[in-house]
Amino acid sequence: MDYQLRLNIAQKKLRRRKIDILLVASPENRRYLSGYSAVDHGIAESSGILFIPARGQARLLTDFRYQLQAECETDLEVVVYRKGLISLLESLLSAEKDVQRLAFESHYTLHSFSLKLAALAEKRKVTLVPVTALIEKLRVIKSQEEIELLRRSVSLNERVFRSIHRSLMPEMTELDIALAVESAMLQAGAEAPSFLTIVAAGDNSASPHAAPTRQAVGSNRSITLDMGLKLKGYCSDMTRNFVIGEPDSRYFEIHRLVRKAQKAGIGAVRAGITAAQVDRAARKIIADAGYSKHFGHALGHGVGLAVHEEPRVSARSRKQLKAGMVVTIEPGIYLPGWGGVRLENMVVVGDDGCEVLNRDETWLDI
Amino acid sequence: MDYQLRLNIAQKKLRRRKIDILLVASPENRRYLSGYSAVDHGIAESSGILFIPARGQARLLTDFRYQLQAECETDLEVVVYRKGLISLLESLLSAEKDVQRLAFESHYTLHSFSLKLAALAEKRKVTLVPVTALIEKLRVIKSQEEIELLRRSVSLNERVFRSIHRSLMPEMTELDIALAVESAMLQAGAEAPSFLTIVAAGDNSASPHAAPTRQAVGSNRSITLDMGLKLKGYCSDMTRNFVIGEPDSRYFEIHRLVRKAQKAGIGAVRAGITAAQVDRAARKIIADAGYSKHFGHALGHGVGLAVHEEPRVSARSRKQLKAGMVVTIEPGIYLPGWGGVRLENMVVVGDDGCEVLNRDETWLDI
Repeated sequence: MDYQLRLNIAQKKLRRRKIDILLVASPENRRYLSGYSAVDHGIAESSGILFIPARGQARLLTDFRYQLQAECETDLEVVVYRKGLISLLESLLSAEKDVQRLAFESHYTLHSFSLKLAALAEKRKVTLVPVTALIEKLRVIKSQEEIELLRRSVSLNERVFRSIHRSLMPEMTELDIALAVESAMLQAGAEAPSFLTIVAAGDNSASPHAAPTRQAVGSNRSITLDMGLKLKGYCSDMTRNFVIGEPDSRYFEIHRLVRKAQKAGIGAVRAGITAAQVDRAARKIIADAGYSKHFGHALGHGVGLAVHEEPRVSARSRKQLKAGMVVTIEPGIYLPGWGGVRLENMVVVGDDGCEVLNRDETWLDI
Repeated sequence: MDYQLRLNIAQKKLRRRKIDILLVASPENRRYLSGYSAVDHGIAESSGILFIPARGQARLLTDFRYQLQAECETDLEVVVYRKGLISLLESLLSAEKDVQRLAFESHYTLHSFSLKLAALAEKRKVTLVPVTALIEKLRVIKSQEEIELLRRSVSLNERVFRSIHRSLMPEMTELDIALAVESAMLQAGAEAPSFLTIVAAGDNSASPHAAPTRQAVGSNRSITLDMGLKLKGYCSDMTRNFVIGEPDSRYFEIHRLVRKAQKAGIGAVRAGITAAQVDRAARKIIADAGYSKHFGHALGHGVGLAVHEEPRVSARSRKQLKAGMVVTIEPGIYLPGWGGVRLENMVVVGDDGCEVLNRDETWLDI
């Protein structure tokens, strides 16, 4: 990855917005601009901040615990804060000439930390500028290199899925399966799961974000398996839905409806359409069949260095899709007491349609 | 757990501070007050907020994806937001009489969300009050029931540690071991690891927060294993440091020094002492031996529903320890190019000393 190029583009944006310094706290933005891959253990425990002047060299500020990793992963100068970040920022700001506008990521900064930044800004007589999505806007259109990494991430995820799917047995618990999935991901070379694997059977699958339980998945029940992994930072995200044993007629009905909605959504994706129009194309299929209130979440979301990123593919998003965006298409129907079915693929938006990154067809068209 | 009692105590605090409504966003605070155990997938993806009036019934606000879990886990009324949290808050505020001061958790609210709250507050003509650590202050002193859960969490974690330690071989990679640890935790009945397991050998152990690599741990090298699990929400956190094969004289020197520092730290803990004094007691041992700059992190931290919580046991913390607090004591020495040694136990602060919750003595006094 050409991090220097990305930094140059970011710096150009800063100059256009008359920002003298940008502090980048979001782990995905940090990684996008520098290659530094440490994650944060919760937002209150930052593993570092990029200090990016509108001109000149960016630096990575971190603490003692991450110093070696930071030095190893990035070409940027690493500055370690020993007396806290605010105190280091104060001395860095003193050393810079003519800083008038200091920007920070409003969408990845705690309100409590923003108060400390505000006090610092007042002391140093600089204007504090909250920005949102400044770096995210660069990330939303993927380069060919990034699409290739996403393709490999999807492909590895599917390989793991198939190896697990082949070995499923009704007496395995949801947790057993989730563990097997996450183990297999790491053994296969993934950096990490890109989110907590969802394995939900029967009733439990009626919760779109069910946590795996110690219940056996059993036979003849709907099983939702939603899984993804990170490869060089790039996330995959896929859901398959199936039954061990014999699906009943209701399962067939719901599954086929969800698949039809998914195809309608995928069919609608192309550059120039709004995210809401894509959502509507899929949602209409489900609504026309009378299940509208059982599809309570958005149709999809962007995927890249973050597993959930822009653009959201929801009924309320007026954003236009553009070529090079990567989104999931994942309709679902959830019936409390019975279960749910969700199907999810990832697609790359193209000028005249989209490329589905998934190759796996297990239990899609049944 | 008596959630209603905890809510009553919180409401009393609200009345004392003339707060009419408190919004609780932190997952640990939510769980402490309601039993609702969902985690957030990043702070930008909340799985719910408690809406706590100074008088009357608290409610849990969440979205469609978590509705069933919320209804199942808590006795509170669950209100689902379909058009976003802000819009639900607006209608809840309209329904409440005489709301003048609306408080939110400054330390677990994004700056960007605080701007939306501010706009809502202006519209509804209420004063927005950022609070920090209001619920955390209730959590910092553990009840007997909580200490018992922490004891069980520590004990289960140690059982897992010993089963893994027995089966270690030099050809295993750091990642193999981390995976084996986390699998064993879940199989043993833990809810989840309480943080990403650290397995670091040789050079890599010189980074206090090393991520496990695909390198074999090898023989005769320092291996740091830092692990913890959640049991009914309560976290354990333990570090053991050892060698497969024969430690060299340097390993003995560093390990014994760290253990001596740990004992000095544990020996200093009692109600009434400041956290900084405890830090100093341990740090002095390491400084006197000439390794001061190789112990770059704090001595410890509180543990409870969060694996890192108040009180921080650092050189700069003037907080007084009180009976019923639970903290880690974890000095370390990190030598770039060689490796590191860290030893960590959890202790309960008592009036005249402390109770060490750990029973495991593997590779402590060598």
